[in-house]
Amino acid sequence: MKVIKDSVHDHIQVDGVARDLLDTPALQRLRRISQLGTVSLVYPSANHTRFEHSLGVYHLACQALEQLGVDGKRATRIRAAALLHDVGHGPFSHNLESLTYRRTGRYHDDVHDLLAGGTVGDVLRDHDLDPEAVAELVAGDGQFGQLVSGELDVDRMDYLVRDAHHTGVPYGTIDHGRLVRELTFTDGTLVLDEGNVQTAESLLVARALMNPTVYSHSVARISKAMLRRGTEQLLESPSADLDAATLQRMDDADLLVALRSSEATDEFSRRLDERDLFKRAVWAEMDDVPGGVIEADHETIRAFERDIADAAAVDSDCVILDVPGRPSMTESTSRVLVNGDIRRLDEQSPLVEALRAAQHSQWRLGVYSPAAMRDRVGRGAVEVLGLDIDGALVSDVRNGLETTLDQFTD
Amino acid sequence: MKVIKDSVHDHIQVDGVARDLLDTPALQRLRRISQLGTVSLVYPSANHTRFEHSLGVYHLACQALEQLGVDGKRATRIRAAALLHDVGHGPFSHNLESLTYRRTGRYHDDVHDLLAGGTVGDVLRDHDLDPEAVAELVAGDGQFGQLVSGELDVDRMDYLVRDAHHTGVPYGTIDHGRLVRELTFTDGTLVLDEGNVQTAESLLVARALMNPTVYSHSVARISKAMLRRGTEQLLESPSADLDAATLQRMDDADLLVALRSSEATDEFSRRLDERDLFKRAVWAEMDDVPGGVIEADHETIRAFERDIADAAAVDSDCVILDVPGRPSMTESTSRVLVNGDIRRLDEQSPLVEALRAAQHSQWRLGVYSPAAMRDRVGRGAVEVLGLDIDGALVSDVRNGLETTLDQFTD
Amino acid sequence: MKVIKDSVHDHIQVDGVARDLLDTPALQRLRRISQLGTVSLVYPSANHTRFEHSLGVYHLACQALEQLGVDGKRATRIRAAALLHDVGHGPFSHNLESLTYRRTGRYHDDVHDLLAGGTVGDVLRDHDLDPEAVAELVAGDGQFGQLVSGELDVDRMDYLVRDAHHTGVPYGTIDHGRLVRELTFTDGTLVLDEGNVQTAESLLVARALMNPTVYSHSVARISKAMLRRGTEQLLESPSADLDAATLQRMDDADLLVALRSSEATDEFSRRLDERDLFKRAVWAEMDDVPGGVIEADHETIRAFERDIADAAAVDSDCVILDVPGRPSMTESTSRVLVNGDIRRLDEQSPLVEALRAAQHSQWRLGVYSPAAMRDRVGRGAVEVLGLDIDGALVSDVRNGLETTLDQFTD
Amino acid sequence: MKVIKDSVHDHIQVDGVARDLLDTPALQRLRRISQLGTVSLVYPSANHTRFEHSLGVYHLACQALEQLGVDGKRATRIRAAALLHDVGHGPFSHNLESLTYRRTGRYHDDVHDLLAGGTVGDVLRDHDLDPEAVAELVAGDGQFGQLVSGELDVDRMDYLVRDAHHTGVPYGTIDHGRLVRELTFTDGTLVLDEGNVQTAESLLVARALMNPTVYSHSVARISKAMLRRGTEQLLESPSADLDAATLQRMDDADLLVALRSSEATDEFSRRLDERDLFKRAVWAEMDDVPGGVIEADHETIRAFERDIADAAAVDSDCVILDVPGRPSMTESTSRVLVNGDIRRLDEQSPLVEALRAAQHSQWRLGVYSPAAMRDRVGRGAVEVLGLDIDGALVSDVRNGLETTLDQFTD
Repeated sequence: MKVIKDSVHDHIQVDGVARDLLDTPALQRLRRISQLGTVSLVYPSANHTRFEHSLGVYHLACQALEQLGVDGKRATRIRAAALLHDVGHGPFSHNLESLTYRRTGRYHDDVHDLLAGGTVGDVLRDHDLDPEAVAELVAGDGQFGQLVSGELDVDRMDYLVRDAHHTGVPYGTIDHGRLVRELTFTDGTLVLDEGNVQTAESLLVARALMNPTVYSHSVARISKAMLRRGTEQLLESPSADLDAATLQRMDDADLLVALRSSEATDEFSRRLDERDLFKRAVWAEMDDVPGGVIEADHETIRAFERDIADAAAVDSDCVILDVPGRPSMTESTSRVLVNGDIRRLDEQSPLVEALRAAQHSQWRLGVYSPAAMRDRVGRGAVEVLGLDIDGALVSDVRNGLETTLDQFTD
Repeated sequence: MKVIKDSVHDHIQVDGVARDLLDTPALQRLRRISQLGTVSLVYPSANHTRFEHSLGVYHLACQALEQLGVDGKRATRIRAAALLHDVGHGPFSHNLESLTYRRTGRYHDDVHDLLAGGTVGDVLRDHDLDPEAVAELVAGDGQFGQLVSGELDVDRMDYLVRDAHHTGVPYGTIDHGRLVRELTFTDGTLVLDEGNVQTAESLLVARALMNPTVYSHSVARISKAMLRRGTEQLLESPSADLDAATLQRMDDADLLVALRSSEATDEFSRRLDERDLFKRAVWAEMDDVPGGVIEADHETIRAFERDIADAAAVDSDCVILDVPGRPSMTESTSRVLVNGDIRRLDEQSPLVEALRAAQHSQWRLGVYSPAAMRDRVGRGAVEVLGLDIDGALVSDVRNGLETTLDQFTD
Repeated sequence: MKVIKDSVHDHIQVDGVARDLLDTPALQRLRRISQLGTVSLVYPSANHTRFEHSLGVYHLACQALEQLGVDGKRATRIRAAALLHDVGHGPFSHNLESLTYRRTGRYHDDVHDLLAGGTVGDVLRDHDLDPEAVAELVAGDGQFGQLVSGELDVDRMDYLVRDAHHTGVPYGTIDHGRLVRELTFTDGTLVLDEGNVQTAESLLVARALMNPTVYSHSVARISKAMLRRGTEQLLESPSADLDAATLQRMDDADLLVALRSSEATDEFSRRLDERDLFKRAVWAEMDDVPGGVIEADHETIRAFERDIADAAAVDSDCVILDVPGRPSMTESTSRVLVNGDIRRLDEQSPLVEALRAAQHSQWRLGVYSPAAMRDRVGRGAVEVLGLDIDGALVSDVRNGLETTLDQFTD
Repeated sequence: MKVIKDSVHDHIQVDGVARDLLDTPALQRLRRISQLGTVSLVYPSANHTRFEHSLGVYHLACQALEQLGVDGKRATRIRAAALLHDVGHGPFSHNLESLTYRRTGRYHDDVHDLLAGGTVGDVLRDHDLDPEAVAELVAGDGQFGQLVSGELDVDRMDYLVRDAHHTGVPYGTIDHGRLVRELTFTDGTLVLDEGNVQTAESLLVARALMNPTVYSHSVARISKAMLRRGTEQLLESPSADLDAATLQRMDDADLLVALRSSEATDEFSRRLDERDLFKRAVWAEMDDVPGGVIEADHETIRAFERDIADAAAVDSDCVILDVPGRPSMTESTSRVLVNGDIRRLDEQSPLVEALRAAQHSQWRLGVYSPAAMRDRVGRGAVEVLGLDIDGALVSDVRNGLETTLDQFTD
């Protein structure tokens, strides 16, 4: 048995298949994938990796399985899935998912291939585990898949606490010990036991407070959009000779250096390296945005960007249109036992609806450009996108709400 | 004024010259230099960077200056020096210092040049600061240089706490608030005020306990030696076309990718990426090592390695001889006021001598090789180096004390 | 200047009037008043006192005043008020307030008298402060009174974090550094600056999650009701010779011993000392409770208790009826700047209404009795109070939801 | 199974005999015995109790037993002993031990009686445990007694971390997870496993740094001496009618109120309640103190006090002579495996001797008196005790090293 020291869970014990999996290149690669991507440009301490997160998820899975009384081969399989759940992540984790999705039809690298092939597959088979069955757990399938990927999964419990610890933002500090301890299966559904409506609410609230403060902080969104645009140009550049499948297997260092090395992307790369970021030319509530823009597909968005650039008389590389998808709230359907019945949290708690409304009110369209051009780009965007806001609002964003430094708010 | 959220000091306020310095490429580059280099292969959470550390040192310097009643331009200059003190660090921080030192005569990039040139110089001059004077503070010169680089400097106070926070090892958790508060100048010397012998001892002890557990952990030493050897081969490889000066201005990503890209180093690179590390073939107390080996210069060490490889009939790339310098203990000469007199801690505290003895007893020569060859390499090394140990000791290391995983001990 | 070490804020600096006030008997007495009263019967680590809390409130007041640019005598006065704000608390803090209120017309000891008289008055006058003006700040009057006692006061910011730290329940871990930093005065109103709707929400949410988990935990409510009943009997016992005014100036030890010493109360005292607590015979949602019961005054409640005891054929000391007041939510009217306008949080955030609904749904009437009698007492109470619940509900409480030990939930 | 939330170990699971023991009056009484007695007059947050500490020790014992592979009835017995180990403590824990020892021949209440009698005995027998066998474990007897009370006991591991947490002094923050994990039995001796010399040193160092900062802080010593003297007068006062055996079964509240209620002690009581403490008239290194004073028994010390009072022409209640016993260092004999041999730490580590020297140099005789009389009392004491110090040293203590407030040092 090995013991690994972790800054969140203190000591993590690893043995059996997990110990062997740790030694695979696929898992070691996660040491070089940051957990939060460009969020570190807002919170400079947020340099934690998918590797330590994977260890944490494994640790909580072990605790949950003990609590649930699951053991034997089934437990081994779930522990393996917990440790491997992020093995398909590309560089900068979620930051580039939409981009690889468009090209490969998958958000992540093919997990089935990853688990069946290479040393990971060898290790799983050596321990008499079927890679396919592990992959299904990673995908959240079946009764026990809920524990790895679902409304009450151990993934969520680890990342909220870990991201809070490393950003310094306390909102994510849930009581994961309590959450794990109250898990139970009722009729094959993973639920929180009797008396835990508030425990479920606390998870929901933690996520709802971390969202705008950390995960969707405007500077994180801007830098992520710049990284995505740069990487897209890299993929499109003939001289770079890079395809999406290769991209997905890179680590953060590979991508950073590739962006620096290509003429097509060295300006984006320089801006990211020097934190000389685009600014918000428009930051609009979605209620003021026409449906056509909200629903626009990738090609249409690129066309909008070009039109805005034309209207503003700037180079099209100087305009990024960032239209995030409609906010969702996975935790809202987590299950809780109430007087013996399984209830969905949104049926039980008035908080769900309120947090959904709060989330909706924070849903923003952004148009970003270099600082010097934001006035022109802002006016162009209002015109091209048909936004229902006046010039004042655009410059409001400019006045006092913008940041040039790392900081926890703007 | 900007406020930055830090996982150690919570909120750090930045304004004036510090705020402008933060926006320079030289400082932003420190985001991509890890604080502890290969230590993260032992403690997977230790991914913090020189950037957050620099902010922390700046923060403690501000507190110390307020405590000391230093203000005006002198204080501004010291704050700038605190923020900039690591700006010359190359990739993987201290891990490669000896290597660049041999080639450039400097451990770090030329700080005078760095501070006088580029945007850093511009910012300093804009704020009416002389880059040369700031560089002298960074070097620890003069009365106030002690605060930036000396026995009681704020650098040390930040890194002990920060490294403890991120590794999860509690030993470094000093009371930095108390240390900063008790600083005073007596006859131009930075001292801890009356009644603080124990405060000084606590700093010394924290450092003494962190050394073997973190900074000189055997796995950190092995991986650092592999990184150093790989980088050296890169510098020597004609096709890589890399010189030491360029190396010093790289970041961690640049070096990782350069090592992967060169045929001369791709095997070391693969081993580091996959954590398929060399093992200890010899781990000898220095009292059992002939003086000629202890004092050997770099060329002699390389020759020893070749001789060991010959004796073991393995490729010379499969032998690394790691002879660390005689351990020092900077904190032992920190000054404390006792009954109105300035005393050196080692004159005052019996702990200094004891910790020095402990440190000496932990001083180890290492010979590293791939796992499969360690027997042969061990025997070859004992013979070539004339070590006063028997075969049993070499295999002792092999039995049960070796690690294949991250862990906090071996 | 003195520096005091605090487990929450680390170092607290105290000087001037605050230092002199600390040495008064009135403030030292707060060392012996627990912050959370009977909550320690649920969370055994929650033994912190009003003294350390008062220091914390003083500390945050100092930070807020610096942030707000308030200095001079006005700041001195506010700092004194912050330190003194709890000086009128009786033993077990809020636990006995309703009881002393009925007898003295005041929840706390007379703050005006306390501040004007004795050594506190001397110290204030020595520092040229008008005790009357300080008392007004403690009461929350005037522009600056909001900082000491209002929706955004520093009292709340300290106790949430401190109670979280000592109970171990993370929900109260707000970002007090951020809250203090974002305070500003607009048109004489204390508000959170632009961009802080979510900061205000986080305070509200922390309070809403701490309420049922800590402050109104059923075991804390039961033991508080027993303490209140015991103390009432003590006040009514001729041999105890205790009046409400004397009670208010006791500390926790005085009251504990007085309860033990009187024959009238030694059984309640024994039960509290041995944690042999009453159990819930009824735990009813307030929607199922007739208005007459909800609005009943103290005498009516005592009459109900006697009637329930009669119906259940038990001694009237074996029935406690606990009807908490309608839940309020002070934080809901905290002010936030939105686009330059002062907005009440409940106008701005859908969370307020949702949390209010959640709070209402947790509002419970309790009837408590010794474990052996709960069946009988439960049936008697349903009948006497005219509750709209069936026997099943009463026994639901009995099945598995009850605690005999300290624990964080039931 | 019950789960209790603890501010140090988070969740503590309690079942079986431990759960039943928790409900006994003897254990519940520990809720009202402070862990550190008068130390809270130095560190105002240090209000934790023997109850939470006992839970913590139980928790670590469970972990250690699992690690050691001890289970069945033997493990049950050890867990019970861990929970009960402090059950004999009198009010203010160690503060009054010497006093009750002189009168009863025991430091604590009779543990054998306590465990065999009352509800504790009933519970133990109900769970088929022999109270006598549990008492032997509490006393540290036998192989497994080492775990409850010995150089490497779980008592020490809990209190260092807990006292650090509540005082805010970080020095005690040991890595208890590591310590517990590395415990093993070799030839019936409890040792730390191979490779843990430094782990053992860290425990020793933590204790050595906590001693002068917390446990033997001069203000803690003064207030403890005052409490002891007051209690002694109470025991000697005919009207108080209190004997040592009764005293030992009191809780902190009982004793505080008893001191207030007796005319013989109300002045000491007032001083303790108002923190109007005696000051140091003499604070002498033991090397300057004649052997006759160091070795003096209680009656001789009382005679010295009277003689000093006479010499100073003050009332004998105004002089306290505090001669602590020769410092010991339990941890110095903890055992560590080194190359398969059991070694005592003081044979292995140069730190032990150095810390012993440091401890000796901190060993101080104190003479305390009201502030107004300290000059006279100081001179009287130097004369009566034959101290080898001059007047200057006595007043040195007066100048700037004395405190009137809580603070973490003087």
